[in-house]
Amino acid sequence: MAKSIHISQKRMEADFILKNAYVADVFSLCWRKASIVVADGKIIALDENDEYSAKTEEDANGRYVIPGLIDTHIHIESSMLPPSQFSQILLPHGITSVITDPHEIVNVLGSKGMQFMLDDANNAQMDIYFMLPSSVPSTSFENSGAVMKAKELAPFIQNEKVLGLAEVMDFPAVLAADSDMLDKINLAQDANKLIDGHGSGLSRNQLRGYRAAGIQTDHECVSAEEARQRIKQGMYVLIREGSAAKNLVDLLPAVTPSNARRFSFCTDDKHLDELMEEGSINFAVSLAMQHGMNPLQAIQLATLNAAECYRLYDKGAIAEGYTADFVMLDDLQKMTIAAVWKEGHKVAQEGKMLHEKMNMAQFDESILNSVHIPDLTTNDLAIPFKEGNVANVIGIMPNQIMTEHIVKEVDVENGLFVPSIEKDLLKLAVVERHHSLGTIGLGIVHGFGLKQGAVATTVAHDSHNAIVVGTNDEDMLCALKALQEMQGGLVVVKDGEVIGSLALPIAGLMTTLDAGKAAEKLEETHSALHKIHPDLCFHFFLTLSFLSLPVIPELKLTDTGLFNVKTFQHIPLEVSQRKAPH
Amino acid sequence: MAKSIHISQKRMEADFILKNAYVADVFSLCWRKASIVVADGKIIALDENDEYSAKTEEDANGRYVIPGLIDTHIHIESSMLPPSQFSQILLPHGITSVITDPHEIVNVLGSKGMQFMLDDANNAQMDIYFMLPSSVPSTSFENSGAVMKAKELAPFIQNEKVLGLAEVMDFPAVLAADSDMLDKINLAQDANKLIDGHGSGLSRNQLRGYRAAGIQTDHECVSAEEARQRIKQGMYVLIREGSAAKNLVDLLPAVTPSNARRFSFCTDDKHLDELMEEGSINFAVSLAMQHGMNPLQAIQLATLNAAECYRLYDKGAIAEGYTADFVMLDDLQKMTIAAVWKEGHKVAQEGKMLHEKMNMAQFDESILNSVHIPDLTTNDLAIPFKEGNVANVIGIMPNQIMTEHIVKEVDVENGLFVPSIEKDLLKLAVVERHHSLGTIGLGIVHGFGLKQGAVATTVAHDSHNAIVVGTNDEDMLCALKALQEMQGGLVVVKDGEVIGSLALPIAGLMTTLDAGKAAEKLEETHSALHKIHPDLCFHFFLTLSFLSLPVIPELKLTDTGLFNVKTFQHIPLEVSQRKAPH
Repeated sequence: MAKSIHISQKRMEADFILKNAYVADVFSLCWRKASIVVADGKIIALDENDEYSAKTEEDANGRYVIPGLIDTHIHIESSMLPPSQFSQILLPHGITSVITDPHEIVNVLGSKGMQFMLDDANNAQMDIYFMLPSSVPSTSFENSGAVMKAKELAPFIQNEKVLGLAEVMDFPAVLAADSDMLDKINLAQDANKLIDGHGSGLSRNQLRGYRAAGIQTDHECVSAEEARQRIKQGMYVLIREGSAAKNLVDLLPAVTPSNARRFSFCTDDKHLDELMEEGSINFAVSLAMQHGMNPLQAIQLATLNAAECYRLYDKGAIAEGYTADFVMLDDLQKMTIAAVWKEGHKVAQEGKMLHEKMNMAQFDESILNSVHIPDLTTNDLAIPFKEGNVANVIGIMPNQIMTEHIVKEVDVENGLFVPSIEKDLLKLAVVERHHSLGTIGLGIVHGFGLKQGAVATTVAHDSHNAIVVGTNDEDMLCALKALQEMQGGLVVVKDGEVIGSLALPIAGLMTTLDAGKAAEKLEETHSALHKIHPDLCFHFFLTLSFLSLPVIPELKLTDTGLFNVKTFQHIPLEVSQRKAPH
Repeated sequence: MAKSIHISQKRMEADFILKNAYVADVFSLCWRKASIVVADGKIIALDENDEYSAKTEEDANGRYVIPGLIDTHIHIESSMLPPSQFSQILLPHGITSVITDPHEIVNVLGSKGMQFMLDDANNAQMDIYFMLPSSVPSTSFENSGAVMKAKELAPFIQNEKVLGLAEVMDFPAVLAADSDMLDKINLAQDANKLIDGHGSGLSRNQLRGYRAAGIQTDHECVSAEEARQRIKQGMYVLIREGSAAKNLVDLLPAVTPSNARRFSFCTDDKHLDELMEEGSINFAVSLAMQHGMNPLQAIQLATLNAAECYRLYDKGAIAEGYTADFVMLDDLQKMTIAAVWKEGHKVAQEGKMLHEKMNMAQFDESILNSVHIPDLTTNDLAIPFKEGNVANVIGIMPNQIMTEHIVKEVDVENGLFVPSIEKDLLKLAVVERHHSLGTIGLGIVHGFGLKQGAVATTVAHDSHNAIVVGTNDEDMLCALKALQEMQGGLVVVKDGEVIGSLALPIAGLMTTLDAGKAAEKLEETHSALHKIHPDLCFHFFLTLSFLSLPVIPELKLTDTGLFNVKTFQHIPLEVSQRKAPH
């Protein structure tokens, strides 16, 4: 601190000056012509009169410079990259801080997964803050890799990178004042840390229960009216624009100059290819501008507001005393990014990191050894079915994480269900893969439209068991075997042969490749997918990954069986026709 | 928390409902017609449809209800009331939380004074938060009762009522990166707590040094331009409207809808009579409205903004999950207050507390035994003076805490200075009163206009030694003796007799009387003052109290002598005429 003071008083040279910039003032929403003077990672001065000198200087040539962007809610695992590599992809897009919920890896590996993310985040050049996963497992209707109660979360709550408790999804537990849930909430409150909500579709009255529990944010608003309701009830709204859920345009009408401080942007889940191509929060800012939001207001949401909500007091602005995270733009409306500085060091230029790939953290070998699928035979995938009965079928809705509950007649041979490519009734299996428990959930799915082969992945929310869909049992078994050999990932099988795959050996969720190579392999896998599904026009893996998530309506499949989310209970696959609703 | 959740879900009755209110929504700046449902001190619901029931109800009859007001910077000692009694006076004016710097008592009693304030604040019905005094003593050019370095402050920093480090006044120490000062700042930063500034007259460049040290607020702005500068430099501005300094009207033009979140209101110092008559922050809000600020904006400054700045996350709004501190108004523009609720309990109605006076905290007897003025004789007050020389004279500026440095010829008899009522050149003495060190500073003062007698007080910023001004030595000695007997306070002497006094035996700064009785005694003391100063038209005691403050220009007197604030050194009283500037 003494050095910074001396530099501020011009007794010593600064480290760096970015001269001749138009700096976004996110306190007053105006642009200021100034040089940004930096030392020890902090902004020492906005110098309007060329008063300071520094060891190195650069000329912004009158370009706009804005604070580093902040993503207030992201599951890094959705990028299939570990934190250190994720950082390499997002920094060139101007994202300098993210708040992440490592919900996916913790569902697989528990505390070990949490520790891996913290360690690997330490290797990242961006700031990665954490919320502790509050719902591991998501429900008791499936087998996950780990169970995290307050006792298991407690060792992490005082970590300075941990900002609180992550999205509290189990709203029935909150509204019932379930003691396990309240223990987790109390853990965060006692540490004076934030509690994120997950208010998907919650009514005003249900939100009152949330607020009574001290839950402060929501990123699940899908309409302006929902957003207004949450602001009124004292919550912060994180406007989501990710791969699956895109709510920004719908929510913008709720943002006014008076209440803007209560809004920020997040992505929640965004995939590798989209992250590489368009970035994340930079894209949201640009989209908000295109839809008429004042550019400085949009930038404020993505910077100061995000920082205030998450109590990052020295982030989110370009002003004396703030962390020197800033982004130089070539074009404001398009958010074309010329260069990015993190703590005063230029880390990216024209879309590329200046330093080679980061090393990942050292980690426990068990992180790479999390997939334990037993050897299976066609018997394990057999679905006994009585001719004349009908089936509870999962009807997929392309690119949506919700499904339809359909009741349909299905083909039966020798007392067993057989898939039908013509009727688009394929077999779906979820195989427990954490502890070799041998539990396998079997179902029938409509809407995927596969013409042959099978597709499988260990990215299967939220317990991340192995999920496989196929036109025949042999290809499904082959796909599961490939997942076991790769220790997780994405795989496409045709005629008993793997024709495309991306290994995700970190907990079965993330790659050990660098982002570029991973993207290539992903592209190959997608091409393979087109071979067995020529007219594919939706995100196959995304849709597949959410078929096992038993908290999103309507009908899902876990390793313990078919699950009706509306009634919150398992149901049989087979329905005696007399009982069928039609 | 479980109970609150159950009540929110209507499984149990609430504690209280204020029905039929127009509630200020400080998030979106609008009024909402709703009932306020309360349980366990928290707001459970803003009920727009009469959905809830409660044990007790009250009808607001359509009146405006606003969040409890927050004073972001006040020295409670200036009210001459201890915290528990201060609370009784301010709650009826709608102030439900204050952030106080117990700078005065800590200058007298050190840690013991700090602990007394914390203990007594616990007895108060309002929320009293603390900033740890950063400048005890204010300078090394005087003897105070205590020295508080980081080591002495450390035991208090983790107290949950302590929000950070109080106004860092010693800006030369900050800008010089003085290690004692940085230790105190680091203490607050390491605890992740706030650091208040005192940016009186500081330039943009000096403020950069402040910001490099992590100082975040300023309550010393006197112009809109100064306020804008501080906002731009990332600080929060506390708009001050107190007894001595009244900056609100001058600062209002700096507040815009974009930057309003960075502003709140404070009083800094406000006296008993004014507090009783007009309150504090309620008065500031009303004044802001009178000068054209949107009422809801003014209320937001006094509530949500104050709470956000001081990280009081559950205060400052009437919404689900917030603390149930709210104020019902009879008149919005005048801020006429009908009733006040603290944590859901009605504590005041129509300007009066509903409960009798609070008991003060149990405290160490030494708190009441802090005045140790030695027995003095006229010899101790003698000012040797050579005929023909001139004097450095303190020229007071009525109601201002600044003084002028005047050089004047004075009357001399027998080699000693003699006061002159005609020329209004009176004798001033500051007597060390903490440790009976025997140090006495003597000076000559112009502008008080006393016609006879002497006036003395132990409220003498910031070291709170005894200060006395008089027309003759005998009355001055009598006044000092009276201060010793009363253990501090205010005293007016005429012809060797005390004709008015208010005892302030708590550290020589605060009364043990209840506020009403103290106000009566204060009124009597002011009447007595008029007897020896018939044409008095300024605040005599206020002006006297600041003559010993060696950080406010231009010429001051401490117990170690006359002090030139501009050159920051002691100077002699007597000047050889050849050296005189004119």
